[in-house]
Amino acid sequence: MTSDTPEPGPVTFVNVFEIDPKDIDEFLDGWRERANFMRTQPGFRSFRLLRALSPDSRFQLVNVAEWESAEAIAAARAKPEFQASVRGVSHEVKANPSLYQAAVEFTA
Amino acid sequence: MTSDTPEPGPVTFVNVFEIDPKDIDEFLDGWRERANFMRTQPGFRSFRLLRALSPDSRFQLVNVAEWESAEAIAAARAKPEFQASVRGVSHEVKANPSLYQAAVEFTA
Repeated sequence: MTSDTPEPGPVTFVNVFEIDPKDIDEFLDGWRERANFMRTQPGFRSFRLLRALSPDSRFQLVNVAEWESAEAIAAARAKPEFQASVRGVSHEVKANPSLYQAAVEFTA
Repeated sequence: MTSDTPEPGPVTFVNVFEIDPKDIDEFLDGWRERANFMRTQPGFRSFRLLRALSPDSRFQLVNVAEWESAEAIAAARAKPEFQASVRGVSHEVKANPSLYQAAVEFTA
């Protein structure tokens, strides 16, 4: 499987952020703006932005979002509104966005 | 908030793995062993192991697990069965485990 032939069906988008804890509040303002746009887009299912409990964690923020397909989230991320908002993010914030599917899952 | 004074209530444990795609299948065998142990432990709620769709993704595996409290998962990870299984993981696999709570969430 390669990025040229995405899996059909629902996907989980995970974005792992490397960010200085002091910059998180400012980052969240822009993130909420993007999130409010993304949740209006076709194929959006849910998202959850997780914040580390310790300022010593390597990855202070992790965004986990469910979409109906790889094509749906790619289309949303390509839109001008999203791209404009992303350009406002500090260059000190390193994002690591990628698409996933569940390999194993279990609920108690 | 510091790691010495964990937040009360449910937490999300996220482990971001840096692993060569060719090593994933072997890693999953050991991971399933640990998961089968963890899901019997007090305070366990759910987990989901996400696998990247592209072999080019920086983080090939992301484990997202819900626990009733920081204390519950710390107790489970401290147990000899868990520690023994972790020692069997290849040194080439870099794990980045950390605790989180949801800062923002939204479902369509």
